[in-house]
Amino acid sequence: MTDPTDLELVDEPGSSDRPWEELSRLAEQGDADHLEEFLSELSTADQALALSRLDDSHRVQVLERLDADDAADLIGALPEIQAAEAIALLQPDTAAAIVNELPSDEQADVLGDLSNQQAEAILDVMPALEAVAVRELAAYDDNVAGGLMVLEMLRFTPEMTVSDVISELNSNLDVYSDFDIRYAYVCDSEGLLVGVLPMQNLLFVKRSSRLSDLMITNPISVRDTTPLAELSALFDSHNFLGVPVVDQDGRLKGILHREAVNYEETRAAENDYLKSQGIVGGEELRSMPLWLRARRRLSWLSINILLNIGAAGVIAYFQETLQEVIALAVFLPIISDMSGCSGNQAVAVSMRELSLGLVRPSEVFRVWWKEVTVGLINGFALGVLVAIVAVIFNGNGYLGLVVGIALFANTVVAVSIGGVVPLVLKRYGFDPAVASGPLLTTVTDMCGFFFVLGLATLLLSRLVV
Amino acid sequence: MTDPTDLELVDEPGSSDRPWEELSRLAEQGDADHLEEFLSELSTADQALALSRLDDSHRVQVLERLDADDAADLIGALPEIQAAEAIALLQPDTAAAIVNELPSDEQADVLGDLSNQQAEAILDVMPALEAVAVRELAAYDDNVAGGLMVLEMLRFTPEMTVSDVISELNSNLDVYSDFDIRYAYVCDSEGLLVGVLPMQNLLFVKRSSRLSDLMITNPISVRDTTPLAELSALFDSHNFLGVPVVDQDGRLKGILHREAVNYEETRAAENDYLKSQGIVGGEELRSMPLWLRARRRLSWLSINILLNIGAAGVIAYFQETLQEVIALAVFLPIISDMSGCSGNQAVAVSMRELSLGLVRPSEVFRVWWKEVTVGLINGFALGVLVAIVAVIFNGNGYLGLVVGIALFANTVVAVSIGGVVPLVLKRYGFDPAVASGPLLTTVTDMCGFFFVLGLATLLLSRLVV
Repeated sequence: MTDPTDLELVDEPGSSDRPWEELSRLAEQGDADHLEEFLSELSTADQALALSRLDDSHRVQVLERLDADDAADLIGALPEIQAAEAIALLQPDTAAAIVNELPSDEQADVLGDLSNQQAEAILDVMPALEAVAVRELAAYDDNVAGGLMVLEMLRFTPEMTVSDVISELNSNLDVYSDFDIRYAYVCDSEGLLVGVLPMQNLLFVKRSSRLSDLMITNPISVRDTTPLAELSALFDSHNFLGVPVVDQDGRLKGILHREAVNYEETRAAENDYLKSQGIVGGEELRSMPLWLRARRRLSWLSINILLNIGAAGVIAYFQETLQEVIALAVFLPIISDMSGCSGNQAVAVSMRELSLGLVRPSEVFRVWWKEVTVGLINGFALGVLVAIVAVIFNGNGYLGLVVGIALFANTVVAVSIGGVVPLVLKRYGFDPAVASGPLLTTVTDMCGFFFVLGLATLLLSRLVV
Repeated sequence: MTDPTDLELVDEPGSSDRPWEELSRLAEQGDADHLEEFLSELSTADQALALSRLDDSHRVQVLERLDADDAADLIGALPEIQAAEAIALLQPDTAAAIVNELPSDEQADVLGDLSNQQAEAILDVMPALEAVAVRELAAYDDNVAGGLMVLEMLRFTPEMTVSDVISELNSNLDVYSDFDIRYAYVCDSEGLLVGVLPMQNLLFVKRSSRLSDLMITNPISVRDTTPLAELSALFDSHNFLGVPVVDQDGRLKGILHREAVNYEETRAAENDYLKSQGIVGGEELRSMPLWLRARRRLSWLSINILLNIGAAGVIAYFQETLQEVIALAVFLPIISDMSGCSGNQAVAVSMRELSLGLVRPSEVFRVWWKEVTVGLINGFALGVLVAIVAVIFNGNGYLGLVVGIALFANTVVAVSIGGVVPLVLKRYGFDPAVASGPLLTTVTDMCGFFFVLGLATLLLSRLVV
């Protein structure tokens, strides 16, 4: 933890108008102290902004010129994907020196985002013990306890006394300065976690007391393979700041902080938003290569256009009706868009309830019924509105009837599908944030076009006057 | 802070199949101990699920039967909006007893979600000092430091010695059990914050030392009115767990924990997702009254249908062309949907870059250029695809040309608007998550229909053969 007095209050965002220009200049002139001084005056957001606007050679210069620990602070300020990009530009030994200064969980994240070859080149020149630890962390998935934990922790043995602990802390203050020292963890000679020690308790006891007499035995812990959802539930129900992470034998592997779980949850919420809008190939920032951005977006668009063409087949099938009553063509995109809107609202509420645990993936009927009732009300309102517009536009009451009934019925279909699809996708292991939208719009487009044109075909003699 | 030994590991989600049935039964039979025992065996998610499925009278029974502190734990497990709903059902004195047991930030949140009248009724029967404190907290916006801070903190005076502190802590262990005691805050006789004291430092000093000699002077602090974005930047750039919050005179008002900032950020990300999907009137859960859900959704849908009808006016204008080349009607919804998809991707990337601080609202030209290049590539690919489909479908090469060029051009328009609109909305103080989508689809629909039908009108003689 950083001493509060070391720090200046953050600058107002935007206090420097184009910080990347000054940063480029300093990168070229190569004065490490000026560079560090300039960066320390920027807010974290402006540091990330400035670095992201440099070309690759200037970015390398900045990172090479800085001391490894300052460079690590700067890397820590970047979004994860940019941090990995910046590290990938460097020579392995420069990269290793910087990575070595990152907290262990960030080390694993950054190396995990590099290619295997790049990561191995860096690990090869890192200190052997660090490299082993990072390899172990990087082997875990990002969203299990092992992938979220840190290795920095106070770790003592049961025979130690309070004096031993205090002198150990005093003589290694620099090592422990970045640690969370609210709790210490007590392990036996085989590394098995046997107790947890709230450090503030040491204030109230004799200095000759042994940790084995002070520690909380049988402490709560999580397995390294515990998934994010369970971790999140644990921190929701208990007021912990961190829990120890153990392997299958009960050996202490690291500490999982509440903050890491919160961070992953925020990332999951942001990802759901991005995926729902069609950013599905991974994080996109506009600093990335054009072809990568275009290709990733196109992979999603091509699936959608095929689904769209499929749905438009319904219109093609009813071409003769359309030929007779051309006014219907005006209303087809309205029916399609509005059903999409209504359905997406239902998708969003299902996603929300799933993430809050207020609905289970099996409760399809319950959700369907709750949606149908809303759909009947809103479908009626929208149907009446569009019917009135149709009558004003065309003067034929039957046209109003056709588009009104079609929008009414299709709103009910759209909310039913929108509410239910995320549950079904989740139940069968698909990602509801990605797949719900396209599935929804395809089905509602087909139904909507069918309702309008099918009804119109039935009432054709009334529509053509 | 809870002692880890008090706690059982959380149950697996779904360990009890329909927990609300048992909860209803226990609510009626009225045995407080059984009720508490049953609830303590549920995970937090299942507690919230079970309570949300009860009817109002059973929900009241559960909360009345439990001890106030157990009821407060249960309320704490609920999503904020449900917590307020549940409190609103209770008699003011029962409600006050439960609210009194909540942490101060949750007190303010829950009372803030009630009607003024309900909140006043509860505050009237709360202990006077608590009520004053909660009123003060509730007066702050949710997204400034004052609205996010807690009042629970260790607060001492500079003349106190280490022994004074230790005996104060020892004699009030129950009061401090829920506090974060990693730091203590030192205030002078006027309540001005004069120092911060890392509690673990007390381990290393003589018990007769005075806090004024041990504390870090001129500690970093934030004003109670500091907005979320700045708080978030502060915690991003500094490894604090909490910062003291002061008023304009420098008086200590409370402590802002990193966790509270993270929580608000997650909520903001979730809200952006919900708003982008048309849930704009506030949180919706399916346990809410049908009419409220329908009305809120409809308010958004009615704006959209008006915009849609406006866009469809372009089709109406070109009805004669459409009459001649009815095949065009098949392609209008495809152009509309696909442009919406492309544009929404650009919106999502802009929202993401804005939230990461990687783009400033004024950098419209930069974003536009980055989007146009992607739009040219993807528009070309999609245009060729739709042109091929049109030729296969209709046999007329000119139809392919018309729809292909239209989709190409409209993709470029859509990504330009999608990329730029969030920046412009943000710059002028509108919420980009809410307004970007409807603005985007309206403009792209109008342009898309205009491109298809305008081009077709120009090439009409070639299309009709």
